[in-house]
Amino acid sequence: MTTTVAIAGATGYAGAEILRLLLGHPAYLAGELKIGALCGHSNAGQKVGELMPHLPQLADRTIVATTVENLSGHDVVFLALPHGHSARLGQALGEDTVVIDCAADFRLKDKSAWEEYYGGEYAGSWPYGVPEIPGHREQLKGTKRVAVAGCFPTAITLGALPAVAGGFIAPDLSVIAVTGVSGAGKKASVSLLGAETMGNLRAYNPGGNHRHTPEIVQNLSAFSSSNTPLKVTFTPILAPLSRGILATVTADLTPGTTPEAVRAAYLDYYRDEPFCLVLPEGQQPETHNVVGTNMVHIQAHVDTRAGKLIVTAAVDNLCKGTAGGAVQCMNLSLGLEETAGLPLAAVAP
Amino acid sequence: MTTTVAIAGATGYAGAEILRLLLGHPAYLAGELKIGALCGHSNAGQKVGELMPHLPQLADRTIVATTVENLSGHDVVFLALPHGHSARLGQALGEDTVVIDCAADFRLKDKSAWEEYYGGEYAGSWPYGVPEIPGHREQLKGTKRVAVAGCFPTAITLGALPAVAGGFIAPDLSVIAVTGVSGAGKKASVSLLGAETMGNLRAYNPGGNHRHTPEIVQNLSAFSSSNTPLKVTFTPILAPLSRGILATVTADLTPGTTPEAVRAAYLDYYRDEPFCLVLPEGQQPETHNVVGTNMVHIQAHVDTRAGKLIVTAAVDNLCKGTAGGAVQCMNLSLGLEETAGLPLAAVAP
Amino acid sequence: MTTTVAIAGATGYAGAEILRLLLGHPAYLAGELKIGALCGHSNAGQKVGELMPHLPQLADRTIVATTVENLSGHDVVFLALPHGHSARLGQALGEDTVVIDCAADFRLKDKSAWEEYYGGEYAGSWPYGVPEIPGHREQLKGTKRVAVAGCFPTAITLGALPAVAGGFIAPDLSVIAVTGVSGAGKKASVSLLGAETMGNLRAYNPGGNHRHTPEIVQNLSAFSSSNTPLKVTFTPILAPLSRGILATVTADLTPGTTPEAVRAAYLDYYRDEPFCLVLPEGQQPETHNVVGTNMVHIQAHVDTRAGKLIVTAAVDNLCKGTAGGAVQCMNLSLGLEETAGLPLAAVAP
Amino acid sequence: MTTTVAIAGATGYAGAEILRLLLGHPAYLAGELKIGALCGHSNAGQKVGELMPHLPQLADRTIVATTVENLSGHDVVFLALPHGHSARLGQALGEDTVVIDCAADFRLKDKSAWEEYYGGEYAGSWPYGVPEIPGHREQLKGTKRVAVAGCFPTAITLGALPAVAGGFIAPDLSVIAVTGVSGAGKKASVSLLGAETMGNLRAYNPGGNHRHTPEIVQNLSAFSSSNTPLKVTFTPILAPLSRGILATVTADLTPGTTPEAVRAAYLDYYRDEPFCLVLPEGQQPETHNVVGTNMVHIQAHVDTRAGKLIVTAAVDNLCKGTAGGAVQCMNLSLGLEETAGLPLAAVAP
Repeated sequence: MTTTVAIAGATGYAGAEILRLLLGHPAYLAGELKIGALCGHSNAGQKVGELMPHLPQLADRTIVATTVENLSGHDVVFLALPHGHSARLGQALGEDTVVIDCAADFRLKDKSAWEEYYGGEYAGSWPYGVPEIPGHREQLKGTKRVAVAGCFPTAITLGALPAVAGGFIAPDLSVIAVTGVSGAGKKASVSLLGAETMGNLRAYNPGGNHRHTPEIVQNLSAFSSSNTPLKVTFTPILAPLSRGILATVTADLTPGTTPEAVRAAYLDYYRDEPFCLVLPEGQQPETHNVVGTNMVHIQAHVDTRAGKLIVTAAVDNLCKGTAGGAVQCMNLSLGLEETAGLPLAAVAP
Repeated sequence: MTTTVAIAGATGYAGAEILRLLLGHPAYLAGELKIGALCGHSNAGQKVGELMPHLPQLADRTIVATTVENLSGHDVVFLALPHGHSARLGQALGEDTVVIDCAADFRLKDKSAWEEYYGGEYAGSWPYGVPEIPGHREQLKGTKRVAVAGCFPTAITLGALPAVAGGFIAPDLSVIAVTGVSGAGKKASVSLLGAETMGNLRAYNPGGNHRHTPEIVQNLSAFSSSNTPLKVTFTPILAPLSRGILATVTADLTPGTTPEAVRAAYLDYYRDEPFCLVLPEGQQPETHNVVGTNMVHIQAHVDTRAGKLIVTAAVDNLCKGTAGGAVQCMNLSLGLEETAGLPLAAVAP
Repeated sequence: MTTTVAIAGATGYAGAEILRLLLGHPAYLAGELKIGALCGHSNAGQKVGELMPHLPQLADRTIVATTVENLSGHDVVFLALPHGHSARLGQALGEDTVVIDCAADFRLKDKSAWEEYYGGEYAGSWPYGVPEIPGHREQLKGTKRVAVAGCFPTAITLGALPAVAGGFIAPDLSVIAVTGVSGAGKKASVSLLGAETMGNLRAYNPGGNHRHTPEIVQNLSAFSSSNTPLKVTFTPILAPLSRGILATVTADLTPGTTPEAVRAAYLDYYRDEPFCLVLPEGQQPETHNVVGTNMVHIQAHVDTRAGKLIVTAAVDNLCKGTAGGAVQCMNLSLGLEETAGLPLAAVAP
Repeated sequence: MTTTVAIAGATGYAGAEILRLLLGHPAYLAGELKIGALCGHSNAGQKVGELMPHLPQLADRTIVATTVENLSGHDVVFLALPHGHSARLGQALGEDTVVIDCAADFRLKDKSAWEEYYGGEYAGSWPYGVPEIPGHREQLKGTKRVAVAGCFPTAITLGALPAVAGGFIAPDLSVIAVTGVSGAGKKASVSLLGAETMGNLRAYNPGGNHRHTPEIVQNLSAFSSSNTPLKVTFTPILAPLSRGILATVTADLTPGTTPEAVRAAYLDYYRDEPFCLVLPEGQQPETHNVVGTNMVHIQAHVDTRAGKLIVTAAVDNLCKGTAGGAVQCMNLSLGLEETAGLPLAAVAP
């Protein structure tokens, strides 16, 4: 039996990365998964070979319009669209179709957080696509709807989770995450020109104004045993590279916490997770070591002088941070091997 | 039956890229190919996890010294060493061992060219590792010895070959190739520091002084039907990216040559080559479209005003330009599918 | 007496670079040159501090609309606009006003070349703004109209001129020039996004299709003593840096030409030119050594095997290639010291 | 009367940047300041033109050995050496010589902090070279000894100072600073190769292990009115650019602090400081807006949800962060205009 897959937003960075992963997926190579409709907005009618020459296997395929009609009739539909477009498509597609939304539309369980950060009508929430968060894998197995996590929340949540769940830190996190420019998507913009981003560093949406903030709070709050609500201040910084996020999480250590206890907890937490690598002591995550992969590289460091925990985590924003996470969820939804088609070894240097 | 593979120079960029490809090779995934000794020079005794965290599958493996003893007993040995080290190892390893040399030691058929460009004792030549050059694939099938092509010669030869073989250009080529910094290898050097290479462009070894020059001449001369010897002036330029070569070849058009004839010849020449893509008209090769792949993207452009042909070709210097070419040759040597384990789709952007 | 200066296109990269240079100009520092109207297109009404925080001295100034009225009444007007806009303004501004056009509108003496490469109505030609070309300095002194040279033609002309004028090469030049992304200007475009240009190399307008081609031909033809018309095939390559052009010119050596004669001629040609530096033997131009300066760094290399001359030349496309050349011409026009306000020492690394 | 200046470590990045600034200094241009001995370690005997072609004015000068003899007899000596070398030279040079040390040797007032972070013998402390810290300017005027600040402490101190001094935050700062690679200096190292730093982000010396930590604590503690000692946890991140630091400081807001009060305090604090620019509301510092300048661009943002202040500050690590600060102190020491020779306008983009 063959599984057919369609993609809405196939010519954007997330859509193209999903295609790259599917083309190397064992089910695709075995002929059991077929790539169907490739939908694009402004590019309908053009060939993949013109638009995305980095995917030569699909060069002769033609982009079609993003319509319910074109997306219907597939077993799996990936939505790789700007937020706000998925709700309608998600409702229009049949309940038997696996719909995997890479945008934010169904990530937040809290209607008021949605309204505060995104505005517009709240569409509800779907199972959240980070299988490594305890309890999530079970919800994702066989699900027909997935809200893929944001790129920053993926890195930050997986980096901070063992410390929050282990009670090693106060529920008050300061997060600075440095990101490559592909996270801003493939749309014309002066501030994202090469000349404006090379040789340059700039913060944006500082101090909790970034829309990924409530998603991080939602993920981590669920594991906090503190009596006070978990707080997160989050500031992203744009840096001159294409792919990669290096997130840092700083928080007060709970009194009595030792470096050894933290390290043991981190190692233990991800012992069975194929995509979460706690690095050897003294070794720091580097984004080029995860480029093209579904990995999160993590290190936790105790600053005994200042009484702080500093966690660093690296992901490829387009892969584990978006498309890789999406394919991992597809695998769980379809009952395939969870790791199928998801690279572990990076294209480095 | 299992094939065992060893690598000398496993911790350099070429060695690590061979490992990345082997880890995704279907024979490895099926358990029919095993990764044996990983030899390093200064790193013997260290764990792969410390040295190359981008290859998490091998994190617990230990680097061993580069000795004949450690390399012996494997079916395939990749030599990813600086030139001048392969001759002795190549002779010491048994005739039944497949030895694939990524250095220059066995590339040149002309002893005097070797002595002029490299100096030291000439060690002879082995079958040359570019299967796409007519006649080479046959020599590589079942061979026990392979001289992998240089990164620049791979791009330049495959770019210029249809024009030279078709007699469309005079045998006098001006070649400028822009390269990323990983081609210079993983050795400490002030001139290759990030601060000396970012935001900077510089030519080096200009005008035929680069050691890849005689290799390009050798490859293309064999297909020139001109009465005068084929000449190449070659100048590389270092640019601020890690992976990628964009080569340009300029030559006088043979009188009467039309753009249509050139295009038809290029399309025809590589019609059956899975790794050589002649782009749609008007579309130029870009290095990020081949990063991580075994592809060469090619375009040929006729300048009718100046009476010139300008060919552009893009490769990933570490993949098709070195490690990918090496694995492609291993496949031919072992009788495996030539394309096995060699990515077509790039990690772009 | 005070000179007043206005800029049309003040918020683009060329306009902003003119401002940077003027702010350091001795006449400005002495209060003898005043910066008047700063005209912008879409930014009229905004503060310089919001748009160009890198020019803090002007933070409180307001951008005004690009009108003849706003530009009138200044002694000097720099036009830093896309080509096609200068003709009208140039005609509307009084004959006593020094008008310095950074676009292509008045560069070409040949109407048919204009029509072939640019189209639209031909507006004639003005004195051409490269004082280092013999004969030009005299034309520029006291002139009221200047056509500033293109960035590529500046590097290529100054690099090739001693060889062409000295008769050392055949009048048939193959030019490949690698450029940073700021040359494309400050306009939103998907193909110029950071994610499309970092880690990437691509040729564009190959083989003589770039509009700077006829300008190069015009400059060099005037110095060729050959009986056959001088030909140029020119291909630019976009590389991941913001500022800088590294141009390479390859041509057949005239029989009997020695490396010593070439070197002596280059040293002699620019002996008295403060902005043209022929580097010590064996040393190659690097773009970061000219960033922020009005310098051209040049090297000439004879490939004796292939019988070719390879010249390399580096400029900062925004400075010597545009704004620096423009200010140099202003100095000549106003009778100031030619080198006033033009940096020699680069911001490197 | 002429002031003569010598530089120890003239061929490193800091030394070369001091030279770039001196070459544009009005005293140098007026012939009142002369550049004397240029001392280098491994490069003695070589020409500046070979080593630093970006400083063409000095091309014919020869580097001499770093000896007390060569440095003696100058009015000003800049020491741009790795830490640990300045103490001896500082003592050997006469008391009438102005000695400006760009290393850490004399920065710390606390002997135990020196021993903990640097080890070796403690040499005492000199007036600390950040004139913008209240009280420092007075100490620097006419001084014969200056300890130039570290690059990170410059950005972080000036960013955080108004908030600490104003009592707007708790004395417990979490600092993440992203830096370009030139900060690591011009010494061969595998981890700083272009191939290891382009397309990559990595933290290093996390959580207070970086040697700049006690310097930050020293600077800010002096202005804290809190009863508890000020704590700083500091983690630097290496990013793919040459010049620039973007520092972020996060701390708990003092109860009752309003965004308006913070903004007013920042504007007021630096109202008369020519090199400290508090950006318009909503505008974030970007490192390319300070490249080549002596400026610090600063923004303060209140996260009302999390109750945090987030300050961002951008400097050019080689200029304001080292050489610019050094020249500013030289000006104060010699009784020159403090701002002389120090660029305000950046080489952007």
